[in-house]
Amino acid sequence: MKKSKSRFNKVAIIGVGEIGGSIGRDLRRKRLAKEVVGVGRRRSSLLKARSVGAVDRITLSLDSGVKDADLIILATPVLRIVELGKRVAPFVKEDAIVTDVGSTKRYIVENLERIFSKRAAFVGSHPMAGSEKGGPLSATAGLFKEKACFITKTGRTDTRALRVIRQFWVHLGARVKEISPKGHDRVVAQISHAVHVIASSLVVSNRAALRHAASGFRDATRIALSDPAMWKDICLSNSREIAGTLDGFMRVVRRFKGAISRKDTARVLKMFDEARKLRRGIN
Amino acid sequence: MKKSKSRFNKVAIIGVGEIGGSIGRDLRRKRLAKEVVGVGRRRSSLLKARSVGAVDRITLSLDSGVKDADLIILATPVLRIVELGKRVAPFVKEDAIVTDVGSTKRYIVENLERIFSKRAAFVGSHPMAGSEKGGPLSATAGLFKEKACFITKTGRTDTRALRVIRQFWVHLGARVKEISPKGHDRVVAQISHAVHVIASSLVVSNRAALRHAASGFRDATRIALSDPAMWKDICLSNSREIAGTLDGFMRVVRRFKGAISRKDTARVLKMFDEARKLRRGIN
Repeated sequence: MKKSKSRFNKVAIIGVGEIGGSIGRDLRRKRLAKEVVGVGRRRSSLLKARSVGAVDRITLSLDSGVKDADLIILATPVLRIVELGKRVAPFVKEDAIVTDVGSTKRYIVENLERIFSKRAAFVGSHPMAGSEKGGPLSATAGLFKEKACFITKTGRTDTRALRVIRQFWVHLGARVKEISPKGHDRVVAQISHAVHVIASSLVVSNRAALRHAASGFRDATRIALSDPAMWKDICLSNSREIAGTLDGFMRVVRRFKGAISRKDTARVLKMFDEARKLRRGIN
Repeated sequence: MKKSKSRFNKVAIIGVGEIGGSIGRDLRRKRLAKEVVGVGRRRSSLLKARSVGAVDRITLSLDSGVKDADLIILATPVLRIVELGKRVAPFVKEDAIVTDVGSTKRYIVENLERIFSKRAAFVGSHPMAGSEKGGPLSATAGLFKEKACFITKTGRTDTRALRVIRQFWVHLGARVKEISPKGHDRVVAQISHAVHVIASSLVVSNRAALRHAASGFRDATRIALSDPAMWKDICLSNSREIAGTLDGFMRVVRRFKGAISRKDTARVLKMFDEARKLRRGIN
C-alpha cells in the first residue's frame, strides 16, 4: 500500500450487493485502488457486479480473492460476516486491513477483533446508505456521499487501521463518526432497527385500511419494503437494544394514547409540539 | 346554480389555509365558479389568499360571505367547523349545498346534518391532501389531483347534494370514495391519525439518537412536522378510533418484539415478509 492518501493496490470486496457494489464503483471511478476484486458465492451476482462496473475481476474463491489484498471489505448479510472472517483469516496478508459494512457492530467487532488480532487489523464500519431494493444492480456511484458512516473504536483498535478506514470513507464522501460498538448498536436500534419493526407493524396492524393509504402513510412505512431476510438477521443480532428501544417507544405511545383518551388538550398539544421541535432539529 | 356539470355562481370558502386556498385556486383556474369569496377572521390571511389567486373577493363577515352562495366550504380547523356551521346556517340560501374538509367526519356530519336539515343540504368531505406546512401561502393549484377524497353518505344525505359534491371533487381531479362517517373515522385513524401519534412518539422516545438519523428515519417521521394544534384537534375529535388503532398496533409491536427477544428466526422473518407483501400492495 502506498503511504500517500490511502490508495490501495488490491481491494477485495466479499459480497457484491448494493453496498459492496457501490463501494467498488466508487473505488474504480475515483482510482483509489489499482484492482478491485469481487468475491462471492454466486457467479450470476458477480457477473452482474462486473457488468455495472463495480469490480475489475471476479472470483468464487475466498482464498485467492483475499490473497495479497491491502484492504478486505466484508459486505455480506450481517449474520454471515463473522463466519466469513474466520474463513478468510488464514489467507490475508500480515499487514492487511479488514473492515465490514454490517448494520450491527457489537457481535461482529468482538469476534473479528479476536480473529484478526494476530494477522491483519480489523475496524468495523457501518455506512448508513442503501435502498430497500438491494442487489448488485442497485450499486450506485456516489452512494455514500454526504451519508453518515460509523466506524468502531475499541481498546484493541489499531491506530493506523482506524486512520486508513476513516480516510477510505472520507474519500467516498461519507461523514465519518467514530463510536464504540455498544454505542453504535444502541444508536442504530433507535434510528433504524426499531423503526423497521414499527413501520412493518403499522402495515400489518392496519391491513384493513391499506387501500386508502395516502402519502403520509406511504412515507412512514416505506422501509417496510426492505429485504425481510436481511432485517431478520439485523434484528436477531441486535435483539436486546431493539427490545429496549421498542419498550421506550411504547411507553411514549401509551402516554400519548392516555392523553388523547382523557381528552387532555394541553398534554396532547404539548406532545405534538415537542415532537415537531425535535424533528425540526434534524431537518 | 346552472344545471350543467356542477358549475357555480358563487362559492364561499370559509378558512383560506392550504386546503381552502388550494380549492379556490382550482375553482378559479378551471372556471368552475363565477365568483370565489374567501371568508376568514384574520384580514392578513385573507390578503395572502387573494395574493396567491385563491379567491376573487374577501370578507371578514360570515353572513355576507355565505349570502347567495350556491356552495359553501367550511375549511377551518376541525374543532371549529360545527360551531361555524351553526353560525352561518341562518344566512345560507334555501338550496345551497354545504360541505367541509375536516379530517374527522362522525362528529362533524352528525351535527351539521342536523343543523342543515331545514335549510340547504350538507355532505361531508375529507380530501387526503396537504403538506405539513399549511397556511394560505401553501395553497397549490392541482393539489387534489389523483388524491383520495372521502365524501360521506348517511341515511339523511340529500341525493342531489351528494352528486354535486362528488362532481365537485372529480372536477378538482380527486379520486372520490363514498363512505359512512363512522367507517371514515376508523379508516383515517388507521392510515393517518394514529400514524401521526406513532411518528411523533418515535421522535420523542429516540431523542438521544436523533442527530444520527438517516433518510429512513426522516421519511418515517416527516409527518411529525405537521401543525401540533391541528393534530391535537383531530385526535380529540376521533379519540376512540385512534386509541383502538394504537392498541392494535401495539399488540403487533409486542408480538414482533417477543419474536426478536426469543430469537424466533422463522417468526421474525414471517412478520417482515408479511409486512413487505402488504406494503407492496399499495405501492
